[in-house]
Amino acid sequence: MSTDTVYSELLTHLNRIHRIDSVASLLGWDEQVNLPADSADLRAEQNAVMAELAHEAAGNPRVGELLKELAKATVELSADQQVVVREARKDYDRATKLPAEFVREKATQASVGYHAWAKARAAADFAGYAPVLAKNITMAKQEATYLGWGDRPYDYMIDLHDPGMSAAVIDKLFSELKVGLVPLVQQITSSCVKPRNDVLVGFSVEGQLKFLREVTEKLGFNYRRGRIDVSLHPFCSGNGADIRMTTRFKEDEPLSSLFGSIHETGHGLYEQGLPQAHHATALGRAAGMGVHESQSRMWENQVGRSRAFWQYFEPRFRETFPAQTSGVSSDELYLAVNKVAPTLIRVEADEITYNLHIILRFEIEQQLFAGTLAVADLPRAWNDAAQAMLGLTPANDREGVLQDVHWSGGAFGYFPSYCLGNMIAAQLWYFALTQRPTLMDEFARGDFTWLLKWLQTNVHAEGKRYDALTLTKRITGEELSPQPLLRYLRERYLPLYCA
Amino acid sequence: MSTDTVYSELLTHLNRIHRIDSVASLLGWDEQVNLPADSADLRAEQNAVMAELAHEAAGNPRVGELLKELAKATVELSADQQVVVREARKDYDRATKLPAEFVREKATQASVGYHAWAKARAAADFAGYAPVLAKNITMAKQEATYLGWGDRPYDYMIDLHDPGMSAAVIDKLFSELKVGLVPLVQQITSSCVKPRNDVLVGFSVEGQLKFLREVTEKLGFNYRRGRIDVSLHPFCSGNGADIRMTTRFKEDEPLSSLFGSIHETGHGLYEQGLPQAHHATALGRAAGMGVHESQSRMWENQVGRSRAFWQYFEPRFRETFPAQTSGVSSDELYLAVNKVAPTLIRVEADEITYNLHIILRFEIEQQLFAGTLAVADLPRAWNDAAQAMLGLTPANDREGVLQDVHWSGGAFGYFPSYCLGNMIAAQLWYFALTQRPTLMDEFARGDFTWLLKWLQTNVHAEGKRYDALTLTKRITGEELSPQPLLRYLRERYLPLYCA
Repeated sequence: MSTDTVYSELLTHLNRIHRIDSVASLLGWDEQVNLPADSADLRAEQNAVMAELAHEAAGNPRVGELLKELAKATVELSADQQVVVREARKDYDRATKLPAEFVREKATQASVGYHAWAKARAAADFAGYAPVLAKNITMAKQEATYLGWGDRPYDYMIDLHDPGMSAAVIDKLFSELKVGLVPLVQQITSSCVKPRNDVLVGFSVEGQLKFLREVTEKLGFNYRRGRIDVSLHPFCSGNGADIRMTTRFKEDEPLSSLFGSIHETGHGLYEQGLPQAHHATALGRAAGMGVHESQSRMWENQVGRSRAFWQYFEPRFRETFPAQTSGVSSDELYLAVNKVAPTLIRVEADEITYNLHIILRFEIEQQLFAGTLAVADLPRAWNDAAQAMLGLTPANDREGVLQDVHWSGGAFGYFPSYCLGNMIAAQLWYFALTQRPTLMDEFARGDFTWLLKWLQTNVHAEGKRYDALTLTKRITGEELSPQPLLRYLRERYLPLYCA
Repeated sequence: MSTDTVYSELLTHLNRIHRIDSVASLLGWDEQVNLPADSADLRAEQNAVMAELAHEAAGNPRVGELLKELAKATVELSADQQVVVREARKDYDRATKLPAEFVREKATQASVGYHAWAKARAAADFAGYAPVLAKNITMAKQEATYLGWGDRPYDYMIDLHDPGMSAAVIDKLFSELKVGLVPLVQQITSSCVKPRNDVLVGFSVEGQLKFLREVTEKLGFNYRRGRIDVSLHPFCSGNGADIRMTTRFKEDEPLSSLFGSIHETGHGLYEQGLPQAHHATALGRAAGMGVHESQSRMWENQVGRSRAFWQYFEPRFRETFPAQTSGVSSDELYLAVNKVAPTLIRVEADEITYNLHIILRFEIEQQLFAGTLAVADLPRAWNDAAQAMLGLTPANDREGVLQDVHWSGGAFGYFPSYCLGNMIAAQLWYFALTQRPTLMDEFARGDFTWLLKWLQTNVHAEGKRYDALTLTKRITGEELSPQPLLRYLRERYLPLYCA
């Protein structure tokens, strides 16, 4: 067979895998958005059969043979084809190098872990959860060994979410960020300027939905290839051909749903910007979690919390909610948009202190994997770190080490991407401003098209060609650094709180 | 291997097939309810891959081997097991006698057909849809040939929906029905009693949804294993573990959505009444479309349009819509519920003339399959038949041949089931009344439990053990006949219109 024929057969397999995965993903969306209360048993069976079918397709030995053929013929492949083959190889290895018995045990353990976590969290009692967590770490190391990363298990977990990233790189970036961040947070929290908590109340769900629809459409989300619904935990799933975002509404927290939706819209815009003809291969897939998060964060923070954005949208917000906003000044509204207040709960954190939550988790994960922190000592280590970084001590483990679900399912090396995304967003943002000095004036007129087009050309169109570090350097000409993020946070928040 | 072991392995396969089918069905529901306007291309690909996976699972050669083993051991199988094996054999033949390429093409064509129909219907332009329809008929005949029904393709299509039924049987039943029906319609439409068209206006969608929720819950629908949403064309999909019904709302036609929803609830109650442990086999599956329709029709018509039903629900209806019902008398309301007025649109037809719509389609389908009517001549043939039977001529194809979605997906031989369902419903109904003379008094108190329980025991619990003709005879002791339906229509409508 010619290399072209082999490559083309590989594409057929990748297309099939992609379609099966996309169906499984839709089932997941439906489970969060639509599933009747007592239908979970059927859905569990449906999920299991789709996982089995996806695994069969991804681990089809024919794919292995085709990849072997293509490995011999690399010189004949174009640069794009090499990207496709490189990532297909990685996916194939992940699908085939784990023994079936281990995969089964992992699935069981994820379920056991979830329930142990939920129980421990409800009781605010870490002790019952500790053995499960210890086993999850052991299994993560075992998995790394199967995949050939036995000497660097934590790097393996990080690479799963952010290809090309490593604990050493993250450690360096986070340490530098922390040095700038801690005094900034102290400066802001000791300010006499305090956003009012009660300024925005009684916003109808219908009105909120109408307004966030207008905002997200204006930012460029294509509702002819996507939709937004309600779920308990907001997320964005699907791919550019059919994006399913979710949000949740609280009548007294309209900004929570609005910014959550802008955040998910950022994810959705990235997916919609990926080359549609290539959704089944690395050329049409996101570069990784960090870059994904850079897109959601840029639209949410650099764009959505800017003066220019609100210059355009404030009159519309007041039109939609005349009664609710009549007693709220522009300054009060803008301060509510940019509220900073340390909290113990990551998902409730503002955009400054959020980074400290991530650094805290990263430092702890590193120690857990290095064996320098025992699982039994986690609650104390967590509480000490929370006090040191956030100036707050959890009253119990529910407010501390038990607050997040991720570790219960074995998802380690996942949190750093959130903070890496913030850094990438800020670095891309300042570079974009040098390319388009009039950008904020355009925002103030409600025109967000230049930024979207620029991101589509420079980030989205590249798919998975480059990892986050390479992509950032290619676009901005500089290595990834925490300094743009620190600059952005200072420029946004110091004038508001410490002028 | 022992027969038990073989049977048990067959069950494992049937469970897997059922789960894959149920995922494909959910995709279909999502396509009608949620799919963004431009995402049809991805959905067509997803449908195709699911059809392929379902086909692979259903046609797994191992299933064929197991069935062969079980054919030798029939004496060792219980009566129930024999039902399971008999239907599994039928399904296996359908799965294996169609080439994979044909199945793929059919799935793609169904999606293409749906969108072509929707477009043609919106534009009231048949010409663009004609080639799709012609291809669907060709493919249906091709399919019949693959299954060994090449000489009776229309009977094949009928049997697909209603096992054991044939065009000859239907022709005989429909002819006898027509003889009684046409003079009845003339008697009613020439009556001086005319329901007012403008009596019910301005019913908010929220209020309608609230009221139909109350009604359908009272009838026994379990919303913890099902839901109702909005789609262009109302339907009921899923299985008893997770029922997805749909409806549509018009503010000036509250009864349309209400009775549509009661109808779909009838389907849902049947599915929810099928033995849950057996959803994957014939023991937990519906007997066929005719029996399915008998359930939806009985709840919609015999129950929902009865005086007793409205004795209970009228006060609730007025409570929900005090302003809209203040000028409407009880008699006006009940006449609106039992409005008879020939219309061009099947789904808007009253329950008497509805049967004429079905007979119209049956006669046209027969001609299309016999080759005595060309697709290009359909609009004219349709319009002529509408004039002859309903006394009305469509102003355009949206009101005529384009009104229904079914043919776009290749569903021929499907419409007769609607009228067969009406006949079965009436025959079961009169028999149920002999068993429970107090039934209407219970309805008037809002108690619908006896009827549901009786249907669960006599119809739902039987699954697919018996075909429609056998089941009707077993329950009522009589052969299926159009006479109970004619009796019911006369008893319901003559006192209202021709007293």
